[in-house]
Amino acid sequence: MSPIRRVVVIGCGLIGTSVGCALRRAGVRVELADHDPWALAQAARMGAGTALRAGAGPADVVVIATPPSSVAAVLREAQARGLGRVYTDVASAKTRILAEAERSGCELACYVPGHPMAGREVSGPGAARAGLFEGRTWALCPHPALSPHALRTAAALATACGAEVTLLAPDAHDRAVAAVSHVPLVLSAALAARFATGAPDGPADPAPAADGLSLAAGALRDVTRVAGSPAGMWRDILAHNAAPVADLLEAMGRDLGRVAAALRAADDGPVADVLARGNEGHARIVRALSRTREPQRAAS
Amino acid sequence: MSPIRRVVVIGCGLIGTSVGCALRRAGVRVELADHDPWALAQAARMGAGTALRAGAGPADVVVIATPPSSVAAVLREAQARGLGRVYTDVASAKTRILAEAERSGCELACYVPGHPMAGREVSGPGAARAGLFEGRTWALCPHPALSPHALRTAAALATACGAEVTLLAPDAHDRAVAAVSHVPLVLSAALAARFATGAPDGPADPAPAADGLSLAAGALRDVTRVAGSPAGMWRDILAHNAAPVADLLEAMGRDLGRVAAALRAADDGPVADVLARGNEGHARIVRALSRTREPQRAAS
Repeated sequence: MSPIRRVVVIGCGLIGTSVGCALRRAGVRVELADHDPWALAQAARMGAGTALRAGAGPADVVVIATPPSSVAAVLREAQARGLGRVYTDVASAKTRILAEAERSGCELACYVPGHPMAGREVSGPGAARAGLFEGRTWALCPHPALSPHALRTAAALATACGAEVTLLAPDAHDRAVAAVSHVPLVLSAALAARFATGAPDGPADPAPAADGLSLAAGALRDVTRVAGSPAGMWRDILAHNAAPVADLLEAMGRDLGRVAAALRAADDGPVADVLARGNEGHARIVRALSRTREPQRAAS
Repeated sequence: MSPIRRVVVIGCGLIGTSVGCALRRAGVRVELADHDPWALAQAARMGAGTALRAGAGPADVVVIATPPSSVAAVLREAQARGLGRVYTDVASAKTRILAEAERSGCELACYVPGHPMAGREVSGPGAARAGLFEGRTWALCPHPALSPHALRTAAALATACGAEVTLLAPDAHDRAVAAVSHVPLVLSAALAARFATGAPDGPADPAPAADGLSLAAGALRDVTRVAGSPAGMWRDILAHNAAPVADLLEAMGRDLGRVAAALRAADDGPVADVLARGNEGHARIVRALSRTREPQRAAS
């Protein structure tokens, strides 16, 4: 039996609505809030819960499922209203939000930074699924001020949604998601951007790549698939994980420069090295993904 | 009716064997050659044709389906033996092979540089499919020395395999495949390589990305999928398209550097720009791919 009986979800996008649906399926009472009445009504129609009533007393958990840039402010207001005993969020980067929460005077003992590693290419409450988190990793990020009870409660919520909990420090989480999610998104977008219209960026740049689209096949489709993700959401995410993403982008820029220089010099060694290590890394990624029940076409 | 009655395929890998199977299905007589007797026997068992007999006279077309680095030498030897009236190949880059063929004294009037835009993640004759080229683009690259008859004959062969012929100059072809195939492969490999074991490349590099594999999800899987392609084959392909690939890798390295600098400076503009153009490029890529009948999970 889950110790969680009543949850408030703030933010009725894809993730918040899916959390509501998953918890309802697990027998939890869910109340919903969103500044957009249409999103709230749509989430309720999807079976994610009912609209939050004033004066109902604190919920067992408040899930903040808003964009990264608003989490700290929403947390502060929710705590001021006494909406819950434990608070968690679902944003893709954690260190900056934790610092913002501390700076703005939030109570940190009951705030559990969280990040379910699930998503879809489509967004909004209408895309929600009760099974979105099944078998997926849900990262929780303990910090020095956190109470063990709050951590246990957030873990019970993730488990009730069908996810498997992984504990990481906030900075370790942010470096990890830079590598597995944020940098792949930027690479994909930067490649796809070369096929957009408009002038290339500088005199040294090659001609627009779109000239070659008649020859496009599977490789391009796969590498650029996540470039179709909502640009506004990703601006916010990347801004919240700026340093780890920038570190890795710069390192990869150097990697690309080394391969380019080796190709120009007809020096096979560095090219062979990146391809061989690419094969090895690919095999490790495939093994890691085979350990989770990966739904078709999921993005995160 | 195809004007092609008899074809010799040299090189019984995935592509050569699939060409044999496709032509046989179209009623063409196919003879096969490979320096590896096991591959030749396997291709024959797959229904791609029978072993090439000495002294059978010139075939209508000789298809050279060997790695890029051996095409010119194989072409020269095949022409010296009088194996065919028209010669074509399937290598992923064309300019250098054409120069090598000219330098080594091949007859160019009957050599049609070709490149079917089809492939699979698995390689070798056992992975061949008669339907591999159905609805896919098959690039043919006319050059000043080429006879119109040879071009028509090679186009008839591609059509008999079920493909749609696109004509491009060799250098335009090479720039196009750099953008749609070779650079996506290097990006994918460079990202996957960050998840390989071993020390990072320099003191400024972030920690190995493999620490974050427990958080891996769909984005990483898609962007790194082609990094599992055979490293040896890709060394050869990249070496044959060095300058166009290096041009674009250097341009993308600059793109990544701009995004990294903007993230560090909390300057939203360049980040928003690459994401928005990524959305636009993604939409154009999806439209271009929807015009070809794209088989599931195909790579090229």
